[in-house]
Amino acid sequence: MKILGIDPGTLTTGFGIVDYTDNKLTCISSGAINTNPKDDISCKLKTIYDNILSQIKIHNPDEFAIETAFYSKNVQSTLKIGYARGVALLAASHSDLPVSEFSPREVKSAVVGNGNASKEQIRYMVSSLLNKSFDNSKLDETDALAIAICHAFRKNSIAPTSKSSWKDFIKNNPDRIVG
Amino acid sequence: MKILGIDPGTLTTGFGIVDYTDNKLTCISSGAINTNPKDDISCKLKTIYDNILSQIKIHNPDEFAIETAFYSKNVQSTLKIGYARGVALLAASHSDLPVSEFSPREVKSAVVGNGNASKEQIRYMVSSLLNKSFDNSKLDETDALAIAICHAFRKNSIAPTSKSSWKDFIKNNPDRIVG
Repeated sequence: MKILGIDPGTLTTGFGIVDYTDNKLTCISSGAINTNPKDDISCKLKTIYDNILSQIKIHNPDEFAIETAFYSKNVQSTLKIGYARGVALLAASHSDLPVSEFSPREVKSAVVGNGNASKEQIRYMVSSLLNKSFDNSKLDETDALAIAICHAFRKNSIAPTSKSSWKDFIKNNPDRIVG
Repeated sequence: MKILGIDPGTLTTGFGIVDYTDNKLTCISSGAINTNPKDDISCKLKTIYDNILSQIKIHNPDEFAIETAFYSKNVQSTLKIGYARGVALLAASHSDLPVSEFSPREVKSAVVGNGNASKEQIRYMVSSLLNKSFDNSKLDETDALAIAICHAFRKNSIAPTSKSSWKDFIKNNPDRIVG
């Protein structure tokens, strides 16, 4: 299963595609989409959307994962997060990819084992899990890969995630019920 | 000159295309894009983007006008405004349309002559200016038409708007300079 993870921002949007097959993680593609700070917002959004769509067309992922929105006290920042998330979600929808959302704490817990991990700790663990160096990469790139890895782990875990319920778990795992 | 005005929202996005030629305003097309409240956000954004793009392809406007963002105290609302504005701006950018933004006060002043006008007053004046009844239309539709009309008036006014400067005005109107 190939998963595209996105860490959206109007100046830099991180992306990462990982394959998760037979409990093995592989990095398919990753990077940072940098917009020109001098461009107007509609042009920046075009750059973000077009690049995400291009990654989807090239690598054909099966699923799309994104962090739940970070709320800033600054309304301008919240609005910009909305712009970038909006066009990223549109790219997913235009490509018929199922969308999953995870909180920053969920991503950190899944990848580092600590819900308060720093971005540097995330990079270290992403590098270790994918057996690849990201020393020269932006933290947006490793954050996006972490989101994709989190989704892979959640998807393949038999334990219910925060998005499902014990009722669903029982329904999907009848063999685990003691009669 | 044909102008597309957009009043964005994740549940209802108003749109209106007006033609402004020889000081005469004509309504070309207008309506409200309603999303299904049960749909997830990525699906709603697809509905908004696809419908705006469809209007652009059918009517081929020359310019795109949108209100500056309304800031809500509720961060969830601000984020949703960001989503809807983001995909609307993307549709403009994908169609190479120049984007102009106007504050709600500017729109009300231009159309009603009162920066504190109500939405019903806007509808009344839009109806009068376009010589067409909008009694059965959503207020989002007449708001969008008002944004387009505001842009038409500003574009054709020889006075500099808040978006231009006296320097631009002098450059564009050399005949108005007393030697």
